Amino acid sequence: MPSALILIADGTEEMEFTITYDTLVRAGVDCKSAFVHNDEFVTPPAAKGSRGIKIVPDGYFEPADSGPDKFDALVVPGGAKGAETISQNSAVQKLVRDYLAEGKLVGMICAGMPDGYTYLGRTDFAARLGSLAALTSGLPKQPLTSHPSVIAQLQDEFIYSEDSVVVSNNLITSRGPGKRTIDPNTPFAKALASGTAFPFAFKMVELLCGPEKRQEVHGPMVFPAGTPW
Amino acid sequence: MPSALILIADGTEEMEFTITYDTLVRAGVDCKSAFVHNDEFVTPPAAKGSRGIKIVPDGYFEPADSGPDKFDALVVPGGAKGAETISQNSAVQKLVRDYLAEGKLVGMICAGMPDGYTYLGRTDFAARLGSLAALTSGLPKQPLTSHPSVIAQLQDEFIYSEDSVVVSNNLITSRGPGKRTIDPNTPFAKALASGTAFPFAFKMVELLCGPEKRQEVHGPMVFPAGTPW
Repeated sequence: MPSALILIADGTEEMEFTITYDTLVRAGVDCKSAFVHNDEFVTPPAAKGSRGIKIVPDGYFEPADSGPDKFDALVVPGGAKGAETISQNSAVQKLVRDYLAEGKLVGMICAGMPDGYTYLGRTDFAARLGSLAALTSGLPKQPLTSHPSVIAQLQDEFIYSEDSVVVSNNLITSRGPGKRTIDPNTPFAKALASGTAFPFAFKMVELLCGPEKRQEVHGPMVFPAGTPW
Repeated sequence: MPSALILIADGTEEMEFTITYDTLVRAGVDCKSAFVHNDEFVTPPAAKGSRGIKIVPDGYFEPADSGPDKFDALVVPGGAKGAETISQNSAVQKLVRDYLAEGKLVGMICAGMPDGYTYLGRTDFAARLGSLAALTSGLPKQPLTSHPSVIAQLQDEFIYSEDSVVVSNNLITSRGPGKRTIDPNTPFAKALASGTAFPFAFKMVELLCGPEKRQEVHGPMVFPAGTPW
């Protein structure tokens, strides 16, 4: 049975976390969620998502128990505040490199801006986006996508793609479609690309369990006719 | 600000719960989750979803604090075991009738069968499906939809529709598209229609907050091109 370690933190986008975890469990993947937490430990642990849903993780993030010898895949969900905590954690950055070096899967969903968060003029913007764990982890130049709002930060360091889900060997990144003009006053500039969470999760299932399993999990969810994944 | 009471129980489908709650919060709806629980209270409360994700509800379900004088909408998510607990609760059944009588919204997502659950031959099947809270609550004949697996139980009592999301005055029901042959040996017969959770949530936003708010919330989620909602 394949296994996956799914990181979570205060501020993680709860739909991105839940859709990925739930869909992988449906495919028979043994999932463990690990709480990346900078403050004092509380008992029991509970991560407060970007929209206020509190989720009890399966355990705290412990680097020694999280390596590519323990799991087949590592998932970093979005949600600006959660992505900041996760992507700035040096143990997570090392883990991303270790998983890729060992040929294990790494999945990242891009994250945008929380309500009211203004990014123009911030020099630490890159570190605040989940998709940019690829950047903070110092990965080599390769195909990648992200939330459209951070194209500028990524296009020199990576081979930037505008597909919804991009697979580069064992690195899987996700975004929304098309290139959009970013106006910080529009809702778009301060929100999340959760709309790609389902196709992202199905791509993870396909790569971990094969295309037949993907089809087996997809059918019963009864997506409306014409859904493009 | 509109408000919504979203029920949750052990076995609730965590994607259906999370997508609805999260999307309503994005629209500015004041959401409260209430734990419908038959056993002894535990502190803090945590509902274990159908795929093992543990969610801390905002509080226990208290009928006296849950009426249509307190909230603008009542939501019953799916997930077979959770739907059974919720739809068999007589206080919830009364609440469904009270909300509709007061002209408040009631939203139900259909639920299917958990893995390994065989429904053929069971006489209590109807009570085991979330969408069928409409039946257990004794609602009058009106347009409605459900998971395709329970058409037979509903089509005499309601005006059955095959649309993904059906609005009948202030009752909103959801399912997957099309009519399918139910074979209990296929994954379809034992699974959930979580694929309609997003269009269901957007319909709730539209009815609670208006079509402009729906558009405002939808755009930033960056669904892939061609997504039919």
